[in-house]
Amino acid sequence: MSIHTSLCDLFGIEHPVLLAPMAGVSGGALAAAVSRAGGLGLVGGGYGDADWLAREFDAAGDARIGVGLITWSLARQPHLLDLVLERAPAALMLSFGDFQPFLPKVRDGQTKLIVQVQTLDQARKAIEAGVDAIVAQGTEAGGHGGARATFPFVPAVVDIAKEIPVIAAGGIADGRGLAAALALGASGVLCGTRFFASDESLASDNAKQAALNGGGDDTERSSVFDLARGLDWPADWNIRTMRNSFTRRWSEDVGGLRQNIAEEQARFEAARAVDDTDIAPVIVGEAADLIQVIEPAQETLHGMIVQAEHHLRRISRLVEPNGKEQRR
Amino acid sequence: MSIHTSLCDLFGIEHPVLLAPMAGVSGGALAAAVSRAGGLGLVGGGYGDADWLAREFDAAGDARIGVGLITWSLARQPHLLDLVLERAPAALMLSFGDFQPFLPKVRDGQTKLIVQVQTLDQARKAIEAGVDAIVAQGTEAGGHGGARATFPFVPAVVDIAKEIPVIAAGGIADGRGLAAALALGASGVLCGTRFFASDESLASDNAKQAALNGGGDDTERSSVFDLARGLDWPADWNIRTMRNSFTRRWSEDVGGLRQNIAEEQARFEAARAVDDTDIAPVIVGEAADLIQVIEPAQETLHGMIVQAEHHLRRISRLVEPNGKEQRR
Repeated sequence: MSIHTSLCDLFGIEHPVLLAPMAGVSGGALAAAVSRAGGLGLVGGGYGDADWLAREFDAAGDARIGVGLITWSLARQPHLLDLVLERAPAALMLSFGDFQPFLPKVRDGQTKLIVQVQTLDQARKAIEAGVDAIVAQGTEAGGHGGARATFPFVPAVVDIAKEIPVIAAGGIADGRGLAAALALGASGVLCGTRFFASDESLASDNAKQAALNGGGDDTERSSVFDLARGLDWPADWNIRTMRNSFTRRWSEDVGGLRQNIAEEQARFEAARAVDDTDIAPVIVGEAADLIQVIEPAQETLHGMIVQAEHHLRRISRLVEPNGKEQRR
Repeated sequence: MSIHTSLCDLFGIEHPVLLAPMAGVSGGALAAAVSRAGGLGLVGGGYGDADWLAREFDAAGDARIGVGLITWSLARQPHLLDLVLERAPAALMLSFGDFQPFLPKVRDGQTKLIVQVQTLDQARKAIEAGVDAIVAQGTEAGGHGGARATFPFVPAVVDIAKEIPVIAAGGIADGRGLAAALALGASGVLCGTRFFASDESLASDNAKQAALNGGGDDTERSSVFDLARGLDWPADWNIRTMRNSFTRRWSEDVGGLRQNIAEEQARFEAARAVDDTDIAPVIVGEAADLIQVIEPAQETLHGMIVQAEHHLRRISRLVEPNGKEQRR
């Protein structure tokens, strides 16, 4: 069982599947499980919390993992980069903001730099800078993202990426998605939503259950949860979650939420404290339709590879070597 | 040169590629060109104009074509269905609205019924009704559409479609897209944007050039062009176009456009009359990145098949029969 691409060589991994560094959800245990299963697990460092990062790196034990950080947040506390690089992660993934200031320090070490992009313009900058790999993320992804969709965005990035491997992200949750990403020219995939609902995920039990029960029709992008959390995200990105009573109340009335922000933040924090997912966010993408079970990450990853192989064989048989004439 | 799927058998075609029935753009000449090249061309009947439909059916000559209509508009002038079915098209594609009232009349004839859907709920209804084929359309598509993205939406529809062939639409403009759609479980693809910029397309020269020059980052969904055209589209759908001065002025201020509608409609109509694409819409999707040339539709379609075959062979070689161990 193996699908081998340039991404496997770049990271020294067996399967071209990366765990998305979901902030606060992709902890050390989940990242380690994905890496031990032959992929590459990325701890979700998010906005950057030194204690949390230290704990989750420790939790990964001797597994070879990477880490992801939110770039604009890292710019506000650049010392975290040293803390992270001291752990010598296999990869550092930077998303949402200008990665250039951090490039020299990363290049000094052994850590590969992955930059996630949501527009062709961002992709061009990453390619010119010579990053090690690019994640082309579609809007169907859970969590923060942009407006471009995976299906047309990935080949457009591949067309300008030269020799830099492109990793497809957004809407990929099974072996069909892996096979399709390879068809589009990607060298591998980055999956969040599918692993959100894994045994090792740090998502709450209620949130995992909501992801399992819900589907892609029930998700939407908005900025209401960022406002509720007091996070001043740049306008280029917003967050995809399951719809719930909080989005239904405010996503069409962001001005109203701003006017009632103190009261609503209190209501929101109270709901988070008791894991009430009708108010607190369940941060998954459109691929929620494809979650059938909550299971160990290893089973998910191995199932994905087996399914991808099946579908790669199936579709290769659709090609008729000498066309219709020959079949007669 | 051939890729054979159940869609080929359903429609009696050589290649599993359908021309999207782009309203007023997919005329008889373009539909005929796609059908003669081995796909299935669908004339874009749009809101329904008896004279236009008659002319474009005539323009297709003896080519075996289909036709697409906007369902909610057909409901307002149901007599058009008889006019269309008299031409015995190979397929009738209904999009955007309740197709159920038209089902019995279509079933009486030889015309296959294709229903285009944008949510899983719509897909379920089409499957229960036993339509002949379902188009699962992603939000990256040009023209009217919904919110779901092609990459996760197609496999989710395939999972519930039973034996009904699923056709992927939205963001598909080359052979990589065709190969990826097959990997996701689709039986074929429906392409609009790529054929918008074909020799036979009825789009204006300026519009074709704008599609060629522009890219996916430059498109967006909005309702401003529907307002400008006086079309009362249901809120479930809006229209993806290239951004231009008209969207930049109004897409964030739809209320303002409504207040100035008479004046703006006059300005809009004047721009359309002189083919000024800085105000008039260029109705293409995110796949605009993948348009490299304006050429005859036959060359596009054949190039797509050759490229899909290449990529299907390439990715099938990524599977290592007995895993890594065997390579040593």
